[in-house]
Amino acid sequence: MKALKKTKVTHQPAAYHTPPRLRSWLIGRPLPTADAEHQAIGKRVGLAIFASDALSSTAYATQEIMVILAAAGSAAFGYAFPIAVTIVILLAIVTISYEQTIHAYPDGGGAYIVSRDNLGSFAAQVAGAALLTDYILTVSVSVSAGLAQVVSAFPALFEYRVGIAVLMVLVIMVINLRGVKESGAIFAIPTYFFLGMLVLTIVIGFFRYLTGSLGTIVDPPAMVEIETTSAITLFLLLHAFSSGTTALTGVEAISNGITAFKEPRSKNAGKTLIWMASILSVLFLGVTFLSTEIGAVPSESETVISQLAHTVLGGRGILYLGVISATTLILFMAANTAFADFPRLSALQALDNYLPHQLTYRGSRLVYSWGIVSLAVIAAIIIIVFQANVSALIPLYAIGVFLSFTLSQAGMAIRWRKIGRLEKDEELVEKGSVLRFDSGWRWKMLVNGFGAICTSVVMMIFALTKFVDGAWVVLVLIPVLVSIFFAIHRHYGQLASDLSLSDYVPPEKISNHRIIITISGVHKGTLKAVRYARSLSSNISAIYVAHDSDKTRQIQQRWEKWAGNIPLIVIDSPYRELLHPLVSYIETAASQLDSNQILSVVVPEFIPKRIWHNLLHMQSATWLKWALRNVPGVIVVDVPYHVS
Amino acid sequence: MKALKKTKVTHQPAAYHTPPRLRSWLIGRPLPTADAEHQAIGKRVGLAIFASDALSSTAYATQEIMVILAAAGSAAFGYAFPIAVTIVILLAIVTISYEQTIHAYPDGGGAYIVSRDNLGSFAAQVAGAALLTDYILTVSVSVSAGLAQVVSAFPALFEYRVGIAVLMVLVIMVINLRGVKESGAIFAIPTYFFLGMLVLTIVIGFFRYLTGSLGTIVDPPAMVEIETTSAITLFLLLHAFSSGTTALTGVEAISNGITAFKEPRSKNAGKTLIWMASILSVLFLGVTFLSTEIGAVPSESETVISQLAHTVLGGRGILYLGVISATTLILFMAANTAFADFPRLSALQALDNYLPHQLTYRGSRLVYSWGIVSLAVIAAIIIIVFQANVSALIPLYAIGVFLSFTLSQAGMAIRWRKIGRLEKDEELVEKGSVLRFDSGWRWKMLVNGFGAICTSVVMMIFALTKFVDGAWVVLVLIPVLVSIFFAIHRHYGQLASDLSLSDYVPPEKISNHRIIITISGVHKGTLKAVRYARSLSSNISAIYVAHDSDKTRQIQQRWEKWAGNIPLIVIDSPYRELLHPLVSYIETAASQLDSNQILSVVVPEFIPKRIWHNLLHMQSATWLKWALRNVPGVIVVDVPYHVS
Repeated sequence: MKALKKTKVTHQPAAYHTPPRLRSWLIGRPLPTADAEHQAIGKRVGLAIFASDALSSTAYATQEIMVILAAAGSAAFGYAFPIAVTIVILLAIVTISYEQTIHAYPDGGGAYIVSRDNLGSFAAQVAGAALLTDYILTVSVSVSAGLAQVVSAFPALFEYRVGIAVLMVLVIMVINLRGVKESGAIFAIPTYFFLGMLVLTIVIGFFRYLTGSLGTIVDPPAMVEIETTSAITLFLLLHAFSSGTTALTGVEAISNGITAFKEPRSKNAGKTLIWMASILSVLFLGVTFLSTEIGAVPSESETVISQLAHTVLGGRGILYLGVISATTLILFMAANTAFADFPRLSALQALDNYLPHQLTYRGSRLVYSWGIVSLAVIAAIIIIVFQANVSALIPLYAIGVFLSFTLSQAGMAIRWRKIGRLEKDEELVEKGSVLRFDSGWRWKMLVNGFGAICTSVVMMIFALTKFVDGAWVVLVLIPVLVSIFFAIHRHYGQLASDLSLSDYVPPEKISNHRIIITISGVHKGTLKAVRYARSLSSNISAIYVAHDSDKTRQIQQRWEKWAGNIPLIVIDSPYRELLHPLVSYIETAASQLDSNQILSVVVPEFIPKRIWHNLLHMQSATWLKWALRNVPGVIVVDVPYHVS
Repeated sequence: MKALKKTKVTHQPAAYHTPPRLRSWLIGRPLPTADAEHQAIGKRVGLAIFASDALSSTAYATQEIMVILAAAGSAAFGYAFPIAVTIVILLAIVTISYEQTIHAYPDGGGAYIVSRDNLGSFAAQVAGAALLTDYILTVSVSVSAGLAQVVSAFPALFEYRVGIAVLMVLVIMVINLRGVKESGAIFAIPTYFFLGMLVLTIVIGFFRYLTGSLGTIVDPPAMVEIETTSAITLFLLLHAFSSGTTALTGVEAISNGITAFKEPRSKNAGKTLIWMASILSVLFLGVTFLSTEIGAVPSESETVISQLAHTVLGGRGILYLGVISATTLILFMAANTAFADFPRLSALQALDNYLPHQLTYRGSRLVYSWGIVSLAVIAAIIIIVFQANVSALIPLYAIGVFLSFTLSQAGMAIRWRKIGRLEKDEELVEKGSVLRFDSGWRWKMLVNGFGAICTSVVMMIFALTKFVDGAWVVLVLIPVLVSIFFAIHRHYGQLASDLSLSDYVPPEKISNHRIIITISGVHKGTLKAVRYARSLSSNISAIYVAHDSDKTRQIQQRWEKWAGNIPLIVIDSPYRELLHPLVSYIETAASQLDSNQILSVVVPEFIPKRIWHNLLHMQSATWLKWALRNVPGVIVVDVPYHVS
């Protein structure tokens, strides 16, 4: 029975395979840790994987610009295209800026890591809060927008949209709990399908435009209701511009996922980023231009993409359904991207002690299960609160994205300046202690700095123009989240210092062990506890809380018979309370202990065979254990007794 | 430190008085058990206390007869009075029958006790189920009917009736949790107020009827909607009769409460019963006669009592409001009666092991708190489900009452027969071993037997005519309850025999104590557990479940340094599970124990200072304790460590 010193045992995985559980059926058999290998991907698959979030925003960005312009009447829709051009210029700046980041952080340079490295932990936590908020909204917005496409084609589904959207979130959650090993192929199909369908629509649209056969929409849907009309003011145009900037969401995805690319990773990732930005620009400009040409209107019942598709493609035929299903699919894929990003970032923050450590736990399928489930639950709640309405969600959206853009690029600018300073220090350079991989730091600092300024200006425009629409929620939420992150950080820090052994002086050995057995009767369960207590120490007493003198006398007699050599202390409880007298007696006893003494409370606990039998018992043992857990110096020993 | 043998300690009640808790504020300071004294009451107060339930049924019985008759048009209302007369005859039979019970059971002869004594445990449990159902419905019906009176006077409250009704139930619950020591005076006022107001209304009504100045109702409310019209058939009349029998509910109250009366108890209680039945008859007949004379109609918006009162009293003046408030008050008092009956009966059944033992527990105010709270919760749920609609509740009501009447009287009949048989056995009588307190057993048997037959016939009429209206619910519910009662009884019986020491052979003394410490790190908390374990035995090993080889190496090194002489077993968990490997290792170890060996699992448990900090920890210790509670032969020892 004596165990070997430092035995090493490997737990038998066979135990998992039988019997098959519900969990295994739902998310698949557990995967061993050793399976966490790495598959490098090329540019074409990389584009498909990382572009879905960014490209999918073309499905709603045009419409969101028009929703705002509608306040000034349909004549204002002419401003949509110039606004789209401005947004594409912004996109170009952000893309160039991120391209630099990719080369500087070949191991993955998301806003959180870049901020942490260059701006310190406060900025990093702000970036973390902004990004987590953004990922949650990506799920809510993308699923809602995807459903809006379906509803455009099948209006009968309108009243079930919230339920279907929540169901979709849960389906995506389960897929992610299974883990997406087969990512490559599966992801490539919908992205290229969407690309193909949208390019086809735009090409046919331009052909018809140039040949003069484009015409306008035949049966425009009811335009969204305008609450307050407005003239075409600067504020209105900036407001519309803010809504359109949602087109930029998802651009940062590649910088998070550089490690997934084949070598040379940075080069491949950088090229993929430029390709993605170019495609996004073409699609966004094309959709916006054609939509205004055909006279599409923003509507709750039919999306602009749907209006464009059936006007250009000449009716609701097979091609139209192709566009709609491709758009729906890519939007769901975009939501899926957030299910990769959110758990990864929250695990990173948890490792840094800013979020609960549970988020670092990889579930049976090697994915961060807690993060996946948290994301799904929060996103589903938001969908329910906002009734799956994309236009209501948009004001909360892009602000987090632009905050993280700004922090990321400001961090990069500071990084270049540091490198520049070090270069000046010739001595260090000669010693080889400076990484001289980059010499044009001045130009790079300017590029990232300019990017940071642009995105921060956009963020401020967004916050001001959309404040009352809902942006205030995020402006309140992010500071709240950051302070929660720091409270968590303080807790873990305190815990580590409290438990640290650096100043540990081993206390005296325990030489006197006092034992108190709590009893409520004298029966087999009690005697089992007595037998156990006797094996620990000879300094034992029992306590019984008396409510009724007849029963007490009976218990005293039985105790005398069965455990006569152990003193029985009877506590009279005139108010019929049980716990309070016990706890106060034990507290007093514990306060009288010397440093070489210890007090154990042995609690006989009845464990019924069936769960419902618990309802027939007072659960006094459970309550007592709970009440004693905060009494210092007391150890609770639970002696269970089972009955058939 | 050595405790004295058989020490007796009285728990200091002072500890309860500071600080004042919410509970004390709500239900008052705790009362010591010694305060449970007994106050005997006279006939006049006795009538007030026990009659509220019975008398209050005059507030709705007439209306419920008319609701059914309405199916045959308002002409059928002429049958209401003859039906009321029949019900009064039934009341007389039941009263005479119960008067005999009161004399035979001077210590309280409710249907449960009488059935248990004379018909066996099955009948007793059926009576118990019927009565508990009835008490619950008394609360739901009385409170709903009370509120219907209020709504008659203040129609604006109609839409809030469910909320107000639930609130009333909670108020009555809190009053009963405080305990009703001052019962006498408080109860007498509303009962006599109601009696006075209703007698006044009836006297004025008859005076105006005889002088020909009664007239008919001026502004009759909208009659209840009739789903299916009917001719005046025998079924319809029996159906209406069934509804009217709710007038008999509460008649059994005095037979339950005989012990509350002054000596000679049985005589005083018997007289009070006859007084109560007479008053009830007069009120019920008077209300029914006058209501049909003035042409009152059953309505959801105004009660018949309200229609009668403002027609007879000439408008909605101060007298009218007096009648309405008296009626409301007595209905709430009737609900209050159930709060005395239900906890008392359920405690009785719990003492007989047919209901959870918690129901026998007297709370800090000496009342059966569990019973009171259970009753309030169930009654409130029923009010919500039935939207405080009296007519919807009535079909569920009286069936339980008549079932308990039948069982009680059948039990009495059998009792008289037994006494008769014993009398014939002259020898026993001579020896004095037979209680010869009763000689006219034949007549008494006939009275109780006839009563039993009448009430069983009424019960069958009720079940048949009201089956589809809702009586089926009770006909299903009572057998279900009875089988639950017996399942509980079996559980307690099994438990008692399992724990019995009658065949107990003390097992071998424990001579070898093996200890396993589960660790997740090496820190102060772990070392506290190690120190404790060392005081128990020298046969100690520690186990650690490894997910990550770097961390494992680090832990092995630290263990070597701090607890090097205790072997550390590392269990590799390739699937990253924690509990399963631990539990299966411990199970294996436990299965290898000899009978003189025991295995303790020492679990270091982190106890954070604030509740929300628990969210930041995996709670592995709690889960492990839960998982180990069913492993035979294993004792779990929880060594808590607190951090600031």
